[in-house]
Parts: sequence; structure tokens; C-alpha cells
Amino acid sequence: MRDVAVIGVGMTKWGELWEKSLRDIFVESALEAVNDAGVDKIEAMYVGCMTSGLFVGQEHLGSLLSDYLGMGPIPALRVETACASGGAAFRSAIFDVACGAHDVVLAGGVEKMTDVGGDGATFALSTAADSEYEVYNGVTFPGLYALMAVAHMDKYGTTREQLAAVSVKNHANGSKNPHAQYPFEVDVDRVLNSVMIADPLTILDCSPITDGAAAAIVCPLDKVKDYTKNQPVKVLATAHATDTIALHSRKDIAWLSAVEKAGADAYKQAGLEPKDIDLVEVHDCFTIAEICVIEALGFFERGKGGPSAESGETAIGGRIPVNASGGLKSKGHPVGATGVAQIVEVTKQLRGEADKRQVENAKIGMTQNMGGTGGSSVVHIFGVE
Amino acid sequence: MRDVAVIGVGMTKWGELWEKSLRDIFVESALEAVNDAGVDKIEAMYVGCMTSGLFVGQEHLGSLLSDYLGMGPIPALRVETACASGGAAFRSAIFDVACGAHDVVLAGGVEKMTDVGGDGATFALSTAADSEYEVYNGVTFPGLYALMAVAHMDKYGTTREQLAAVSVKNHANGSKNPHAQYPFEVDVDRVLNSVMIADPLTILDCSPITDGAAAAIVCPLDKVKDYTKNQPVKVLATAHATDTIALHSRKDIAWLSAVEKAGADAYKQAGLEPKDIDLVEVHDCFTIAEICVIEALGFFERGKGGPSAESGETAIGGRIPVNASGGLKSKGHPVGATGVAQIVEVTKQLRGEADKRQVENAKIGMTQNMGGTGGSSVVHIFGVE
Repeated sequence: MRDVAVIGVGMTKWGELWEKSLRDIFVESALEAVNDAGVDKIEAMYVGCMTSGLFVGQEHLGSLLSDYLGMGPIPALRVETACASGGAAFRSAIFDVACGAHDVVLAGGVEKMTDVGGDGATFALSTAADSEYEVYNGVTFPGLYALMAVAHMDKYGTTREQLAAVSVKNHANGSKNPHAQYPFEVDVDRVLNSVMIADPLTILDCSPITDGAAAAIVCPLDKVKDYTKNQPVKVLATAHATDTIALHSRKDIAWLSAVEKAGADAYKQAGLEPKDIDLVEVHDCFTIAEICVIEALGFFERGKGGPSAESGETAIGGRIPVNASGGLKSKGHPVGATGVAQIVEVTKQLRGEADKRQVENAKIGMTQNMGGTGGSSVVHIFGVE
Repeated sequence: MRDVAVIGVGMTKWGELWEKSLRDIFVESALEAVNDAGVDKIEAMYVGCMTSGLFVGQEHLGSLLSDYLGMGPIPALRVETACASGGAAFRSAIFDVACGAHDVVLAGGVEKMTDVGGDGATFALSTAADSEYEVYNGVTFPGLYALMAVAHMDKYGTTREQLAAVSVKNHANGSKNPHAQYPFEVDVDRVLNSVMIADPLTILDCSPITDGAAAAIVCPLDKVKDYTKNQPVKVLATAHATDTIALHSRKDIAWLSAVEKAGADAYKQAGLEPKDIDLVEVHDCFTIAEICVIEALGFFERGKGGPSAESGETAIGGRIPVNASGGLKSKGHPVGATGVAQIVEVTKQLRGEADKRQVENAKIGMTQNMGGTGGSSVVHIFGVE
């Protein structure tokens, strides 16, 4: 297996991009990555997208987007594992380069979520849950994560204010990210008093509906100088694990075993422990998700993630900065793009290009992307010399 | 890159399987493959599926199906490139094994197409075309392939009867395949006089709407004896190429350049030429597709594919047997499963297990899977000692 490095990343402003179509926003981000790397071609492409069929009536994105990027007839494939599709696209690109099939491969992610009306987005997202058992009975994702939150509060004493503190921290970080959809700060009172979505989660506990894309270019580590002048960001680990997609099938709904498994695999591959990680981007689709994830990744003991944001330990400058980018909460969550955007952030942080949200002396970064209520999780670790 | 071999395949009867759900039919085929190989575990899984979101309101298939297969928490990913999703899933499994990530990997394909009512299937399939330019203007896949047929007839003198002969041949082969959806024979008159779908294509020029799944298990060639007693079928080449998904963007709508490119790449990898291939399974979603594909793969000169079925050259026992399985036409076309089913057929043929449709002395087989009107194509070559 050849070692792989990230040599270019791209991302443009996320939000409700009414004036642009899926193909437009993908190409914008992909060209940013091409320009950042300084390459004049890519040899293969993987696109993470959860459900463009339901959102915009378009499948076959690999071919469509490689054509619009001007890169046809390269092999180009879409991969999907719900909201972890972006992380999985990056992992597929690694395997492609690692096995020697190609040298310069683009991993992109995209979702155009605002072009669907009525309850279309809620239904489209529900397809990440078990359609025959969960969705059929009317549960939606805010409802599922609310169940997880209630279980965590009951079992460990996690408080409503601790959930809110995650949102406060991520909005504070996102206010320093020019690409964030909602780059404003919030306080605990505002989170608690915002409209209730699924008790105990208010709308400021939920990540938004977003149009957006992101892209990263990888090549073999030993050929970096052939392709770019950028500082390479080495991929130290790639891991993917699954769990039941139905929440009711799990022993403990306050614990994310796919995240634990993918995290453990990644630490093992990299020969690292949680204490070695300088920053992590995690999948905070809801505030409770961040708390569960940082426990499953071993940054906090089981049941001890609740106070993390309140105590400042996960802030920029804290013990383990979590979601310096603003996370899904503030930056936005175009579901198929999120996993790649996490890699964009970690790459910029490790290259020292994160401006006002820079984590000082960041040498090792981790990304954790998740599908559904944790039915899948993809974890990567990156490092610079 | 490690060499890879197929060590087990599985497929059950295709058709309108009202009494089974998507997860049922996938698990049936996957367990057949597991049993065929004689393995007691798989380490990773790739699932080809075009649009389960639109057909059955379910995404996140990797996690769902690995769970139902009893193989969680393995990494499991869905891949999509329209009707070539199955071939792409197999290619992803090859890369996974080739790079050393895992040893025993399952590539499956599935589509449950009959659970959607009204014009749902036609709309779902249309998402393989360009939604903003083709579908918006009302064109469907029979219409697009009819345009290609008219162009081929006009340019090369291909006749209506030659198209029909493809259907006659594939139904004759399919009548010997116990898994085929429509295992009956037809004659030229019946094809010509069946209901018109999109002039010049009648319903017997069109592959059907099908529920079905298929699976194949791969491992490193040098470890075959650790996992199975089966004769290994070596993967000699894997290739994937793309084209514009919009037909109107191409220079020549009677020529499939993605198929030509993927075929040329595959021949080069394997060090083989068309004359070395003993049998080929091609993507005959419409009769005209088979004619265009066998030209693009070099079995016939450009424009000379028309008479191939009429002359008997592509029959079992002919110069180059095409679609001994019955092809998409007779066997059925559950879009995401088709590419894997082609590999099931070639594996059985090369192992000498194809019963009444066995191609004698078959040592080298090829599969060609295609998305949309040829916006993507995946080609594999296989061999046995």
C-alpha cells in the first residue's frame, strides 16, 4: 500500500445557493482544489453525495461532474454512505492511489439541498434511517437524536445547558470561517429559547439544510514534488466501520460503536492515541452528536463528554479543539460534502492557513464523519512534519 | 497492486419479486456467494445500487445490508454510476484488496424496481440522464436509445430486423438460464410486432424492470487456497471510463466512446486483444446498445455490428458469444445488480458450470457494464488457467 498525501483542497461559501445548481457548486470547489494543488489534470475522481436523486432528480454524478469539470473521460464514481459519503469518497480515493491505479485523484463531496420543496428535505434525509422500521413509523432525524440526547442525559446527567454550550462554541468558531453558512455567534440563552424541534433539541442544536461542496486532491506521498509546491499533508490512517442503521437495534443508544470502532482502527494504523491529536473535526449534526462522538473517539471518558464545551476543553486553545471550522452546526451540513469539508479544514489547519481560527502548533489532525445516527462512520488521521 | 481473484458468486431468480424487499433479495444473493466460496466471514463490502432512494426510499445501503447479512461492523459502502453501479462496486472491491486493506471482500449489486408506482420507475431511471437538459425536456431512456438506433441505421444501414435478431438471440440464451426473468424464446416477427415504445424500438427491444441482486467475493490471488476450494477466476483487467451523460453533447451518437476507452484500457492491462476473448457479457439495455457495444469493444468494425446476431457470430458456439446468460434483455435488468450478475455469469462460464448455455473451452471472459446512454462504462477481463 502506497502512502498518500493531500496536496490541494477547495471549498467555497456554503449556504442557500439559489442561483447555483449542483454541478456549479461542485465545479467551483473542485477547481479551487485543482488550483490550490497547482496540478493540470486529475486521473480519477470520487464524489460523495447522499441523495441527489431525491434532492435534485439527478444520479450518475461521477460522469456528469467529471464532464463539467472538463476532466472527462476519466473514471469518476459517486459513493454513498448517507451523511458519511464525503469521508467515504476520500477513503476511496486513498485506496485508488494506494493500490497504484492512479497518481492524482480528486475526492469531492456535494449536496444541493434547498431545491426541494415541502417536506422533501426531511424525507430525503430520512432515507439514511431504516425506511421499513423507523421512517415508516414517522420518526425523523431530529427525533432520533433527541432520543439519544434523552438517553445520555438520563444515564450520565448531561444537561440541557451542556448541549447548548456545544452550539455556542461551534458558532463562535464558525464566526471566524468565511465559508460558514451561519457565521454568527450565539449564547446559551438564545440556544435554549430558540424554537423547539424535538425535545430537548431546539433549532440551535440542529445543523442546517445547506447547499455546498468541497474537494481534496491526493497523490502518492513519494511523488508529491512531481505535482505540487504545497506542503503535503500525509494521510496517517483511514478507517470505516458500520453499525445497525436502526437505533432500536442497538444495545445502548447513548453510545456510538461504529465511531468507537473506526476511531480505534485509525489510532492503531497511525500508532497514535487520543492525546496525540492536536485538533479534530467531528460530525456535530446535532449538539448531542458531538458529545457522543468525542467520547467514542476517546477524548473523554464514556459519559463525560457533556461538560466538554462548557469547560472550554474543546475550544480553540483548549485541550482538544473540536470543530475549529464551526462544525456542521455553524459551517453548514450539505450532507455529502461534509466529510470532505472536514478534510479541507484539517489540511488548512495543518498547513497553518486557518487564519483567525488557527489552532497553534497543529501537527496531527483527525476527521470523523458519520452516517445516520451512527450507522456508519469514517475516520481519518493526518499529519505534517 | 496485488493480483485479485473471484472465489465465489451468488445470484437468485430475478423477476417481479413482490413478496421480498430490497434487503431480502440482497442477502439471498450475498449468502449464495458466501456459501459458494465457503468463507466464514467477509472483511469489507461494496454495494452497487443506482437509486434505492427513488425506488424504495432507502439510502445508506452499505450499513443496512452488512447488518442484515450479519457482517456488521465491517466497512460497507454503496457506489453508484447509474446502471454501471454493479461493475463499479466490483472494481472498488478489487482496489480494496489490491491495496492491501482487506483480503476477503464482497461486491454486490441490488435494485428493487417494482415497488414504485405510476411513472415512478421511468422517472427514477431518467436520473441517469442529464436532468437539466434531457429529462427537463421530456426525453426518457427508450427515447434516447431510439435516437441512437436511428442514427446507427441511417449511418450504417443497420436494419430493424438486425435489432430484433439481438433480442431473439438473447431470449434463446436466457431460456437456458434458470435465474432469468423472462426465460422464453421469441422470434423476429414477435419482436417486430410487439408494442412500439419509441420508434424504432418495440417492447421486445427493451430490457425489463426487474427486482434482483447478485454478489461476488474476491481475495488476493496468492491467498486463494487459504479461503476456498473453488477454482479461482483471476481478474486480468479492470477499467472505467466516462463520457458526457447528455447524448446531445457527443460528436457521434452512434458511437460509445466510454466503452471504447474502457475496453482499450482493459485490453492493454491484460495484454490481450478482442480475438483472445472467449465470451463477453455486454450491457444490452436495448438491442441497439448491444450492437454499439460490440463495435466499441472491437469485436466488430465500426458500423458492422448490425448483422452480428442475424449471422450467428454472437450466438453460443459462434465466433464471439455475446450474452450467453440471456443478457439484460431476457435475464432482466435490476440496474444496480446487472454489472455484478455479468461477473457471476462469466465466473460460472470459466468454471464450466453454465449448464445448457456453457460456452465450450471458455478460458478468457469479459464483462461490459454501462451507465445511462454510455456516460460511464466499466469493463473487466477474467481468466482461468
